[in-house]
Amino acid sequence: MTSNIKIQPENWDDPSTAATSSGGSKIFTQKKHVTFEDGIVLTSGEIISPLTIAYETFGSISPKKDNVILIDHALTGDSHCAGYYTESDAKPGWWDPLIGPGKAFDTNKYFIVCSNCLGGCEGTTGPASVNPKTGKPYALSFPVITIRDMVNAQHKLLDHLGIDKLLAVSGGSMGGMSVLDWAVAYPEKVRSIIPVSTCGRLSPQGIAFSEVERQAIISDPNWNNGNYYNGELPANGLIIARMIGHITYLSSESMLRKFGRRTRNNDANSRFGKQFEIESYLHYQGDKFVERFDANSYIYLTKAMDFYDIAEGCKTFEDGAAQIKSKALFISFRSDWLFSPRETAELVDAMRKSGREVDYHEIESEYGHDAFLVEYPKYSYLISRFIERVYRFYNND
Amino acid sequence: MTSNIKIQPENWDDPSTAATSSGGSKIFTQKKHVTFEDGIVLTSGEIISPLTIAYETFGSISPKKDNVILIDHALTGDSHCAGYYTESDAKPGWWDPLIGPGKAFDTNKYFIVCSNCLGGCEGTTGPASVNPKTGKPYALSFPVITIRDMVNAQHKLLDHLGIDKLLAVSGGSMGGMSVLDWAVAYPEKVRSIIPVSTCGRLSPQGIAFSEVERQAIISDPNWNNGNYYNGELPANGLIIARMIGHITYLSSESMLRKFGRRTRNNDANSRFGKQFEIESYLHYQGDKFVERFDANSYIYLTKAMDFYDIAEGCKTFEDGAAQIKSKALFISFRSDWLFSPRETAELVDAMRKSGREVDYHEIESEYGHDAFLVEYPKYSYLISRFIERVYRFYNND
Repeated sequence: MTSNIKIQPENWDDPSTAATSSGGSKIFTQKKHVTFEDGIVLTSGEIISPLTIAYETFGSISPKKDNVILIDHALTGDSHCAGYYTESDAKPGWWDPLIGPGKAFDTNKYFIVCSNCLGGCEGTTGPASVNPKTGKPYALSFPVITIRDMVNAQHKLLDHLGIDKLLAVSGGSMGGMSVLDWAVAYPEKVRSIIPVSTCGRLSPQGIAFSEVERQAIISDPNWNNGNYYNGELPANGLIIARMIGHITYLSSESMLRKFGRRTRNNDANSRFGKQFEIESYLHYQGDKFVERFDANSYIYLTKAMDFYDIAEGCKTFEDGAAQIKSKALFISFRSDWLFSPRETAELVDAMRKSGREVDYHEIESEYGHDAFLVEYPKYSYLISRFIERVYRFYNND
Repeated sequence: MTSNIKIQPENWDDPSTAATSSGGSKIFTQKKHVTFEDGIVLTSGEIISPLTIAYETFGSISPKKDNVILIDHALTGDSHCAGYYTESDAKPGWWDPLIGPGKAFDTNKYFIVCSNCLGGCEGTTGPASVNPKTGKPYALSFPVITIRDMVNAQHKLLDHLGIDKLLAVSGGSMGGMSVLDWAVAYPEKVRSIIPVSTCGRLSPQGIAFSEVERQAIISDPNWNNGNYYNGELPANGLIIARMIGHITYLSSESMLRKFGRRTRNNDANSRFGKQFEIESYLHYQGDKFVERFDANSYIYLTKAMDFYDIAEGCKTFEDGAAQIKSKALFISFRSDWLFSPRETAELVDAMRKSGREVDYHEIESEYGHDAFLVEYPKYSYLISRFIERVYRFYNND
């Protein structure tokens, strides 16, 4: 029995890959960076300086700059929401089936911007970035960040790009929280929001999973109180965190259908013989993850998710929800138990009680939280229709 | 941020404690041990010798020995299913509200036997026991065990006690698997079974949680490939395993009701300030657990649960279910998602298709898997009524 079982089955990639549509021609993109030397003032009052943001854009901005859509990624996502960097890339960006010519976020019509979040590890300043004051990675000296700080960092990027109005902001999971917070923080700039598989505040069960994931990381001796950048990575801890995460991304029924109780081999390293396919799948996902993600980012971003509460500073949850004035299309998936339809509905109900005309669709799916990266045919038309309606509304068409 | 946060709130004990009824007078018991020098031959062909079994009994055996009820404990349970060892004990055995004078398992009428399972760490031979061949704890040289091996070990105990017929076998969770397997392995000896919060085979989601729990343990450097008995315990790993376990024992709705998103203090050791109550609860449960449970037992017992399949060796699941000839009362709880009503119903349906007259009650509860240690008023009468009926049936009353 070892902690790193190296079985790498062929078809166990992320659902986003499996479900990639390849109907249209490939679109190509590149990751760009902008650095703000004056940095960013956080809601805590602390300053991160300089601030670098990694971002990608798709399509062309209109002369009136009225066709901009901002896309916010999930916990372990990045700015690469669509397209390919090179012809030889094995797979496209994480929401590619929704973004491109003729797709829901139609790059023939709209200008799409997607940035890596503040605190991330895919080009935007985060705990792995070098602190110019010390010449070393921030590690735990990186300030605590919130979803609002992520939104404010994106706001600086949009300012830099000369964008003042957003036709829509969309994203799933943690990205959906940023979407909501955009409407709260900058109501005059956000014409519509499309939050997918998200909620106004994480459930205690969601917080519980975040915490055991973090504990797995910080209990790894290689974590070394966050100072591992010059040594061994806390790989075992991060693998376990990712394995737990993947359990919460699937549903019990999708696991049953995909893996059942099938066993796949005799694991020569194990005292216990056969390994179940679901175990092998989780190990595969864990092993892949440590190659690309920073453990400290995982801690900072999950904390930001845990603490996000749309009603922060408000008397009631309804007051929090009522802060959203933008037009809104909410989408959730029936078997999602990490960001459950119940929680999306709680937010939608609160908005409706405040007189907001909210569109909300609970999509039938057995794919759990992963559904927003799988069930494109079931919801992409809702998005395209909604955006067109919003666009016409603001152009008196 | 530390991995061992030492907050110990007052009322966050196991649900069994919180729900203990104290209507009747206390009953007292003692843990007994019997050692079989010839040991036990496992289904694998391996032998564990000697075999010691820790057990407790309650009530008196009838002259005809027709009033014996066997109780099987869950993963981290033990032989102490009811009563107190001493007047000063803070809490009674784990199923005390069901077992005692006038209770569902009425010790005025029945003779109750409960033993610590094979592979456990509460008195019965397990990985922490000394291997007489080496003079050292078995650790991972302990043979792999199955639910059937646990049942066969209990069978030796009952032989020793001169018991040939069981009026009933009952237990919850992993204990429920033993209950089912008793009816399959010794159909002529088992007059009835009362499996609670269990299923004929663990779901892939259940296996997934088992595996990340085990990974947390074996990734702890102190685990040392199972050889930690003379050194530091793999406490961090076992704490994380227990924290994950507790998430699966509660339901999302019970967490919401019990903890909500309340924060309870500023954690001075944390970079991130406030701690949610659910986090504090899980840490408390984890910290308590390492004081009493053996990490290797956790690995062996979860593996036995994962591999248990009532249809093993059968062509179909229905054939597996049809092996149960005993009268049966199944109980599940609506919000249990570790051993969900769907899975209990799968087994019950399969038995009914084979012509078995099975009683099955799905109890409304929001307590999740823990419900079988909480919701006594909702199901104890089902048990007492069922046992009385079985008893009368076999005594032509």
